[in-house]
Amino acid sequence: MADGKRSLITLTTDFGTQDGNVAAMKGVVLGLNPDATIIDVSHDIPAQDIADAAYVLRRAFAYFPPGTIHIVVVDPGVGTGRRAIAVHTDSALFVAPDNGVLSYVLADLELAAQHLRIVHLTNPDYWLPEVSNVFHGRDIFAPVAAHLSLGLAIDKLGPPISDPVTLPEPRFRREPGHIAGQILHVDRFGNLLTNIPGSALTHLGQPIVTRIGTFEIVDLSKTFGSGRPGEPVVYVDSSGHLAIAVVNGSAQAKLQCSVGQPVDVITHDRTSSPGRSP
Amino acid sequence: MADGKRSLITLTTDFGTQDGNVAAMKGVVLGLNPDATIIDVSHDIPAQDIADAAYVLRRAFAYFPPGTIHIVVVDPGVGTGRRAIAVHTDSALFVAPDNGVLSYVLADLELAAQHLRIVHLTNPDYWLPEVSNVFHGRDIFAPVAAHLSLGLAIDKLGPPISDPVTLPEPRFRREPGHIAGQILHVDRFGNLLTNIPGSALTHLGQPIVTRIGTFEIVDLSKTFGSGRPGEPVVYVDSSGHLAIAVVNGSAQAKLQCSVGQPVDVITHDRTSSPGRSP
Amino acid sequence: MADGKRSLITLTTDFGTQDGNVAAMKGVVLGLNPDATIIDVSHDIPAQDIADAAYVLRRAFAYFPPGTIHIVVVDPGVGTGRRAIAVHTDSALFVAPDNGVLSYVLADLELAAQHLRIVHLTNPDYWLPEVSNVFHGRDIFAPVAAHLSLGLAIDKLGPPISDPVTLPEPRFRREPGHIAGQILHVDRFGNLLTNIPGSALTHLGQPIVTRIGTFEIVDLSKTFGSGRPGEPVVYVDSSGHLAIAVVNGSAQAKLQCSVGQPVDVITHDRTSSPGRSP
Repeated sequence: MADGKRSLITLTTDFGTQDGNVAAMKGVVLGLNPDATIIDVSHDIPAQDIADAAYVLRRAFAYFPPGTIHIVVVDPGVGTGRRAIAVHTDSALFVAPDNGVLSYVLADLELAAQHLRIVHLTNPDYWLPEVSNVFHGRDIFAPVAAHLSLGLAIDKLGPPISDPVTLPEPRFRREPGHIAGQILHVDRFGNLLTNIPGSALTHLGQPIVTRIGTFEIVDLSKTFGSGRPGEPVVYVDSSGHLAIAVVNGSAQAKLQCSVGQPVDVITHDRTSSPGRSP
Repeated sequence: MADGKRSLITLTTDFGTQDGNVAAMKGVVLGLNPDATIIDVSHDIPAQDIADAAYVLRRAFAYFPPGTIHIVVVDPGVGTGRRAIAVHTDSALFVAPDNGVLSYVLADLELAAQHLRIVHLTNPDYWLPEVSNVFHGRDIFAPVAAHLSLGLAIDKLGPPISDPVTLPEPRFRREPGHIAGQILHVDRFGNLLTNIPGSALTHLGQPIVTRIGTFEIVDLSKTFGSGRPGEPVVYVDSSGHLAIAVVNGSAQAKLQCSVGQPVDVITHDRTSSPGRSP
Repeated sequence: MADGKRSLITLTTDFGTQDGNVAAMKGVVLGLNPDATIIDVSHDIPAQDIADAAYVLRRAFAYFPPGTIHIVVVDPGVGTGRRAIAVHTDSALFVAPDNGVLSYVLADLELAAQHLRIVHLTNPDYWLPEVSNVFHGRDIFAPVAAHLSLGLAIDKLGPPISDPVTLPEPRFRREPGHIAGQILHVDRFGNLLTNIPGSALTHLGQPIVTRIGTFEIVDLSKTFGSGRPGEPVVYVDSSGHLAIAVVNGSAQAKLQCSVGQPVDVITHDRTSSPGRSP
């Protein structure tokens, strides 16, 4: 990663925006580095939902330029023994609690053969002088990110570690004529986003059938606008994975589904009746 | 428009802010132009409500400095045959799907005798290398706007067109002793914002009566703070149009009204009973 | 305050973010000062809740660097006779309606022996040419703040005043073996934030008991993550005051409490039964 140019910082939290806590973090960053550009990824992660934050961060981070510093504060263990960490990779830096919230993005980067350096944040020289037990985002993560944006070497922040907490990542399974996955996220439109890569579908014959709960959806649509209003459609979402939408409606509401629900894709058996099961 | 200084970019979408999609667009812009300033107009446009986005953009855009680039992504037809366009005007640039979302603001600029140049976005040199069928905001509109902010001439983006999609704009009607309009938008306070310009009221005698549903509201208030709590008042809103508020309450809830509902303004007939109809 | 470097501006409003009104304010600021950095403190202050805005601003403002200009627009009296003011202090500037929304933060600064200069905004040279009766945020406060960010001396804006409107601030009371306070704010997690400083607890014996409604909560937790799920805990929040949370839940929902509700802290009487009252 080119050092020197690191003034872009993103924030992903479950703080909401009503209470001014995100603003306090930004004030701390700008007090240390007035030239930082700060971008909100999301502050509406469901409260304490580490897996959802990991998912949302992974979807967004690849679109940020090299050297971007990502702060993630979904931190149910703040003030307990959980570690705080910073991670240096070839394409980005991360500052977060060590609770797995970075594990999806770090897994991707390791797959891409990037070199990761992880440190345990123990050096209070780069924190605010007073650290609240309940707001490390403001008192530790924000000032650490600001110092990194000014070019600080990550090894000043604390000792290296090699055992960060890792979330079990829900993997899709490929079997003959069958791909089994699950819903990872429900977006603002009620679309159901899964962990099944669109590229995995070449494994199956055409047309495919997607089974979710008691619903069967035949074929793959090019986009969510192609079906009839009220109809569920399966399409490849903007991250390249299968998703289920209801045209002009909410798939979550119509299919009564939530995160974790299994999704199965099979080759359409032309002898079975098409469309939805009863 | 002064070329060269075009680094202010606004975003108007129906994406919400929870899923990180707005952030991905900002990452793309800042990757291409690290000096861009990006301002959110709204990400809470009701899902796929093109007319509401057109309305919100028109209210805000005049307050941005010359050369501002406005990206609008309310795009139910993404991935279908709908065109993507960019528009160069004397005061601003716009990048959006060609679905009418720009039509209110472009109508205003044409009324103001501005010269419009519209191009169909067909040149993939200024897009991301991979374009998702469902997220042109990130893959086409954001990089196009970033290139424009760096000074790219609009005609590099694609061929000129002269037939952009236009929304039918709800016009108010002026008749003797009567102005007929409708509600265009309900704001966060539940205020009902209409398409009747305050300046049209000089057409009527004093005091006026505003009829909406079964309610009659006598007279025009200077501001929404001037009435009694719970009472509906009519005032001229910050865009210069009639609006209905309920002091310390929601006019939408009290008057049970929504977008499209007719609003009639007449001269008060002193023989009729004042106040609300039964 | 160091003059010259004043390009950081914050916004605290009850406008929400759906209607584009916040964006219009930002457009006005950036039209006058393209180098301004604008940070949102909150736009989700409950409608017209002056005291909540005063509270949220006080929590956030100390984390912004010297010279930051804070615009606050929670303004039920806009367009009526209420004054508009700007305040110069040793650490920050403020632009707001004179309705008490600044009074908590100004009380803190006066306690810290800062010198305050307050002016009544009467000079239209620093406003937009047309001023709406209902949106002084856009037409007066935003351009005034932009001019201040460019280095304008505050006395250009209007005559000094010495009688700003002050909100009655809910004070905690210290009695022998008892501290009486109240809830000032409910945050996005449903945590109940009080006006009782953690430092006041040294006044009491250990362990403490916190009484709120029909609940008694024994002892002080280090952080909200330390209790059992569903259990209410008392902790010192990030502003240094007592707060009540429910682990993995909402204290507001479980304790059926809202702003203004009394909170009493006493020394635990070891003869009484611990835990919640019936």
